[in-house]
Amino acid sequence: MTVTVTADMTMSLDGYIAGTDHSVANPAGNGADQIGGWIHAQSSWRERTGLGGGESDHDSEIMREWFEATGAVVMGRLMYDSGVEFWGDNPPFRAPVFVLTNRPGPTLVKEGGTTFTFVTDGIDSALDKAKAVSGGRNVDIAGGAHTVQQYLKARLVDELQLHVIPVLLGGGLRLFDNLGLGSHALEPIRVVDTPGATHLKYRILK
Amino acid sequence: MTVTVTADMTMSLDGYIAGTDHSVANPAGNGADQIGGWIHAQSSWRERTGLGGGESDHDSEIMREWFEATGAVVMGRLMYDSGVEFWGDNPPFRAPVFVLTNRPGPTLVKEGGTTFTFVTDGIDSALDKAKAVSGGRNVDIAGGAHTVQQYLKARLVDELQLHVIPVLLGGGLRLFDNLGLGSHALEPIRVVDTPGATHLKYRILK
Repeated sequence: MTVTVTADMTMSLDGYIAGTDHSVANPAGNGADQIGGWIHAQSSWRERTGLGGGESDHDSEIMREWFEATGAVVMGRLMYDSGVEFWGDNPPFRAPVFVLTNRPGPTLVKEGGTTFTFVTDGIDSALDKAKAVSGGRNVDIAGGAHTVQQYLKARLVDELQLHVIPVLLGGGLRLFDNLGLGSHALEPIRVVDTPGATHLKYRILK
Repeated sequence: MTVTVTADMTMSLDGYIAGTDHSVANPAGNGADQIGGWIHAQSSWRERTGLGGGESDHDSEIMREWFEATGAVVMGRLMYDSGVEFWGDNPPFRAPVFVLTNRPGPTLVKEGGTTFTFVTDGIDSALDKAKAVSGGRNVDIAGGAHTVQQYLKARLVDELQLHVIPVLLGGGLRLFDNLGLGSHALEPIRVVDTPGATHLKYRILK
């Protein structure tokens, strides 16, 4: 069974996924609150996080599509540490999540189908584990920047979707900031333009 | 008369306008030939450069729109030095071009309405000179990266259009690589998606 590996990232037009001085305590960084705004306003996200309400529009459909297509998730430790409190007892993933880390720990079982499994033996192992439990659906490399770069560099990503926010941040954490990334030819899959973001989806040619 | 100041740049999805080791002798840099490809294949560009033929499609319309809307151009010295031989005796601009430089020189008068005037007293002066002769049409900041950054930083650009090429270059000359740029809020104007490029146009909010 072939499993598609996706990476979905939200970034400013000038390529930043967080502002300056980002950290676990300040994951969006300074001046970059709008980066996550297109997600948090949407009904599909709010439904998943138990908040209810929100806007039902193209942005929401993009988010819903991601939830429906994704069978397992891989993320870096910093993203996990930054998000776990915010996601709460019933995280929106509702799928197995594999966290790349040097610190082993027991798997955390949350409500709604989300589990967090800590993988200490590298990106190939995490991806294999995710593929094995994705039920044939996509495995998404959810972030952060360094984790996505590692998978891109290893040419393990099949589809890349960028949600481009209409702002120039002028500084912060770059999505693409890795001299060893190498060149990748892309085939455009689609563009969805909404007031909140421009959603650019590409197939990465091997 | 209000003149709109535009900046139009072609970049890879990861934000590079040229590959590594770019120079006057190798303006596209290594591995980045496709950056200019969407322009050079188009009938509107080929018509302007006397080549004829080429593809008439949305990409060509974007280029034609730029030619029709632009009454004067500002560019950096490196862009001029890199392009002047390629543009030949009848450059495609057919409008006054102001070149930012430290080296004064006489204005060059080419065929078809293009002139190259060398401006040594700064970006405000070059923009004022360009506005004065644009006939109410746009003044375009044509590049390169450093020149566009200077005008963005001074908050002198009204509209920013990026032509995003479907490739990850992984390294090279960044369009946005300037810690002093500051944050700019953008209002999306439109997205035109073509096989050659995704054309993203924004108004910069002041």
